[in-house]
Amino acid sequence: MADLFKPITETMLMGPGPSCVPAAVYEALARPTIGHLDPRFIALMDEIKALLRGVIGTRNDLTLPISGTGSAGMETCFVNLVEPGDRVLVLVNGVFGTRMADVAGRLRAEVDTLEFEWGTPVRVDAVREKLADGPYAIVAVVHAETSTGVCNPVAEVGQLVAPTGALYLVDTVTSLGGMPVAMDAWSCDALYSGTQKCLSCPPGLAPVSFSPKAVEKLKARGTKVPNWYLDLTLITSYWGGEKRSYHHTAPINMLYGLYAALQCIDREGLESVFRRHREAHEQLVAGLGQLGLEMLVEPAARLPMLNAVCVPDDVDEAAVRKSLLEEHDIEIGAGLGPLAGKIWRIGLMGHTARAENVARLIAAMKSVLG
Amino acid sequence: MADLFKPITETMLMGPGPSCVPAAVYEALARPTIGHLDPRFIALMDEIKALLRGVIGTRNDLTLPISGTGSAGMETCFVNLVEPGDRVLVLVNGVFGTRMADVAGRLRAEVDTLEFEWGTPVRVDAVREKLADGPYAIVAVVHAETSTGVCNPVAEVGQLVAPTGALYLVDTVTSLGGMPVAMDAWSCDALYSGTQKCLSCPPGLAPVSFSPKAVEKLKARGTKVPNWYLDLTLITSYWGGEKRSYHHTAPINMLYGLYAALQCIDREGLESVFRRHREAHEQLVAGLGQLGLEMLVEPAARLPMLNAVCVPDDVDEAAVRKSLLEEHDIEIGAGLGPLAGKIWRIGLMGHTARAENVARLIAAMKSVLG
Repeated sequence: MADLFKPITETMLMGPGPSCVPAAVYEALARPTIGHLDPRFIALMDEIKALLRGVIGTRNDLTLPISGTGSAGMETCFVNLVEPGDRVLVLVNGVFGTRMADVAGRLRAEVDTLEFEWGTPVRVDAVREKLADGPYAIVAVVHAETSTGVCNPVAEVGQLVAPTGALYLVDTVTSLGGMPVAMDAWSCDALYSGTQKCLSCPPGLAPVSFSPKAVEKLKARGTKVPNWYLDLTLITSYWGGEKRSYHHTAPINMLYGLYAALQCIDREGLESVFRRHREAHEQLVAGLGQLGLEMLVEPAARLPMLNAVCVPDDVDEAAVRKSLLEEHDIEIGAGLGPLAGKIWRIGLMGHTARAENVARLIAAMKSVLG
Repeated sequence: MADLFKPITETMLMGPGPSCVPAAVYEALARPTIGHLDPRFIALMDEIKALLRGVIGTRNDLTLPISGTGSAGMETCFVNLVEPGDRVLVLVNGVFGTRMADVAGRLRAEVDTLEFEWGTPVRVDAVREKLADGPYAIVAVVHAETSTGVCNPVAEVGQLVAPTGALYLVDTVTSLGGMPVAMDAWSCDALYSGTQKCLSCPPGLAPVSFSPKAVEKLKARGTKVPNWYLDLTLITSYWGGEKRSYHHTAPINMLYGLYAALQCIDREGLESVFRRHREAHEQLVAGLGQLGLEMLVEPAARLPMLNAVCVPDDVDEAAVRKSLLEEHDIEIGAGLGPLAGKIWRIGLMGHTARAENVARLIAAMKSVLG
């Protein structure tokens, strides 16, 4: 039997996630597995919740990592909050907004979308106008649209949503840990993320947080949550309270990894982490500019951690990615949907967002593009 | 900030899972993360599927690990196969049968249960009689009931279900990798498991397999699967076919762990693995007998890997577990539901199922019980 681990060597992960993982996180993953009801593990769970609250910018009691990848976080928010017939407004300007609408529709919500051109941000005035068609039970938006590199104005949208009484649901999969996320200040009621982006932990967990208003809606449901695995009314009795009740067996070693990843961020300090992301982004844009490459997104709406770069007309984009991976051990991402073949997506997430990594990529791009 | 990793040391895991993890699996978890669409990772995914088919005893094309723990496997089977109004029969003799009925009910199935006393197996004659109330769209049963230590007659039930046209759904969370599982020979249509029991990989993944008949039902659905994250019509286009389409970011490092765990089993050989479980079980029962302890389940229905031991009337069961953990670094499990306080659950799963471990437990029990 061939050993398929042999070719798997350290790779510089500059795609849309997963990102590079710090040594402390790898070490954590390999620590001895203990039981999911062991008091030592419960202590670690409590600390993970506290650290998550810090990164998310919230005081919400219901803040915990879901046992699945980022998309399970999306599913968790919708399946716990949507009841059949609820009117849900999703602001769409990329793959992940589109996915939200799909998820909500499957749960028998009455889904309304407000669409914006991919590569451009959600326009606040259009949202204001659309909200007049309400009332909506939920308004949902993606903070950092991973498919396009666009940052949406989530604080401004939150100000419009709050007075309508709708729950405000925000996707921070790609932004969390790489730029300011301020759940409480945004009047956000439900938020989810993933571990494999700016938290720099391998994929497998989805931090989620619910405001007291969201918890109220959850408790007032007329029907059971139509998903046992992601039912927060059950999961919270394992993740909180005096007596911890077994729900499902938590992914112990992945949670070790998340704890270590959150410790790294806590030690460095959020401000310093965010600055590192911004500086790496500026270095990247300047370096790509010198190679004659242009960015898809206008400067004001650019994310630091996900950079959409226009592929020049005469360049085979897949061949460039292949050369980077095979000859330089660097992964960058392709475009999705209408942007397939038109952009590269260069991630500068978490541990990846460092000057030496950006310099290495620019040198490799220069060599590959000739 | 306190380092909560410090107290987490090697613990002998003899509860209902997680089980002890071999060194090769820990090493695998800490291997360099690469991209979820990297050709080296796709090769590893294909090998995982092939190895899983061997352990599951199937030729099913749709065989893959779901990105969640064992309960996500349960959710996956039901959410993909149940359509509202479908009649589902669940055979219940413990926590996990009860959970199946709950999961199916949330998906708007018309759920019928056939109940047996906890600690006793499903009776085939009662199933035969109940099937006359059909037709059912799905008949579901747990192979190894983790809450009681009972082995259910899944092959015999399969023979009864096949001619009725119902899909036959079997939970092998605790049995897979510790005793023979023969999905195809059982005429089983949908099967799920978990990694943290006899596969001896930390929790976080749920192997799932669908027969061609189950895939047919999935493809013939009149409505979308009401769960985007677990929708197998989407997941299979990432896990199979020529062009792998991104669905969600796979839990890369957990899959490294599963690959290493399956390699360990493959190298040892299934027959040898099963013999090791049986021998450890016999050694345990004999050793406990010498301490005057009795088993809950009659010999013919006992599982090798999950041993329900009656707590003597004059013994504080929680204090015994606490002493074992704190003084001997051994975890055993408590009873659940109606068996809480009445039994201990001693797991001999995967890497844990070794003569030296059983001897160590018996000596510790002797010391703790005085």
